[in-house]
Amino acid sequence: MSWSALVFDVFGTVVDWRSSVVRAAEATGIDGDARAFADAWRREGYLHPLVEVVTGTRPWEPMEALTRACLDDLAPRFGIAGDLDALTGVWRRLDPWPDAPEGLRRLKERRTISTLSNGGFAQLTAIGRHGGLPWDCVISTDLFRSFKPDPACYLGACDLLELAPSDVMLVAAHPADLRGARACGLGTAYVPRPLEWGPDGPQPEATDEFDVTAVDFLELATRLT
Amino acid sequence: MSWSALVFDVFGTVVDWRSSVVRAAEATGIDGDARAFADAWRREGYLHPLVEVVTGTRPWEPMEALTRACLDDLAPRFGIAGDLDALTGVWRRLDPWPDAPEGLRRLKERRTISTLSNGGFAQLTAIGRHGGLPWDCVISTDLFRSFKPDPACYLGACDLLELAPSDVMLVAAHPADLRGARACGLGTAYVPRPLEWGPDGPQPEATDEFDVTAVDFLELATRLT
Repeated sequence: MSWSALVFDVFGTVVDWRSSVVRAAEATGIDGDARAFADAWRREGYLHPLVEVVTGTRPWEPMEALTRACLDDLAPRFGIAGDLDALTGVWRRLDPWPDAPEGLRRLKERRTISTLSNGGFAQLTAIGRHGGLPWDCVISTDLFRSFKPDPACYLGACDLLELAPSDVMLVAAHPADLRGARACGLGTAYVPRPLEWGPDGPQPEATDEFDVTAVDFLELATRLT
Repeated sequence: MSWSALVFDVFGTVVDWRSSVVRAAEATGIDGDARAFADAWRREGYLHPLVEVVTGTRPWEPMEALTRACLDDLAPRFGIAGDLDALTGVWRRLDPWPDAPEGLRRLKERRTISTLSNGGFAQLTAIGRHGGLPWDCVISTDLFRSFKPDPACYLGACDLLELAPSDVMLVAAHPADLRGARACGLGTAYVPRPLEWGPDGPQPEATDEFDVTAVDFLELATRLT
């Protein structure tokens, strides 16, 4: 239990993007199903282009540019008539999971805590302010002009922290992200978030292959003490 | 008073490097004058090489590398016999000026607060943890492989924050740094620190040329409200 820094995936791991986006869509005005819209926005505005970028079939762009571009197509499909730039701003005001702020405070007592997210540096800074997240520093993969699970992202974070990969642990709700970190020599903490895609959505993979598994950040803090 | 982000010089502005270094030298064991040693370390290990780097007569290196290299020459001059690597570590454990943590907390209520220092990213992160400094994010000029007052540093910070220079204010105890920021279009807040070089040291320049002047971060928070 000797990792001196913890780096956190953010979307889904620290913040509940889906509930925040549903509320923002309803506040903007939507004819279609706000939940289906939120899921489609995440898939088409991030997950699909991410695969294309990581496999080299599409050039890298900042996450928020992908998020905004996708909305031109989604808005008419879901009957959204409001200000699309303003709606996109919700991705800087995502609420944390209830355990996250206090869990991070406890984890910070013994270890450096940072983001390591595919969001942008300014976006992650804004999310931290919005949610009262006590990061010691913000690391975003746009500093490396790439996305996780590109090894350059995990190794770049270790370089910035001036730590060996074995001194750094990634905390994430997504096994693929953790496997990318593990392949670079980082420790891995799996915090599945069963509500990420809603109560009826796909459930997290059940696996015990990582260094630590915890139901939330409070349990993680206890496990790492 | 509309700046949405404040970026802070750190050494001398947020932290009292001299007192911390004096105490560390005394704890390590020093035959010479610990105060003169601290001043010489700052001048020869940072200010002199900074001028050479900024004027292009010396390649850029991380600040801590300059700090450590200089000590091989200074230690015998001042009769220091301890572990020089360990002594260099004090530059990650510098105590803040007494007003800094609370002042930053107040300033953070309304604006994003970040470092913008010639220290390294990991070094600044460690200083923030040591001093309980509630940064929203850490920006270091090693991200740009340069040192202030190179314009690339001020403009690079604005780019990372995705703000126009006119939306960002530099807070610093050093007029030369503030003039560099102003030339790039940033706002400027001057917080002179008369004790930076000790009670008998050189005193800060008296000038009212900047957007705001305050005696400490508490007054700055009041002035910016």
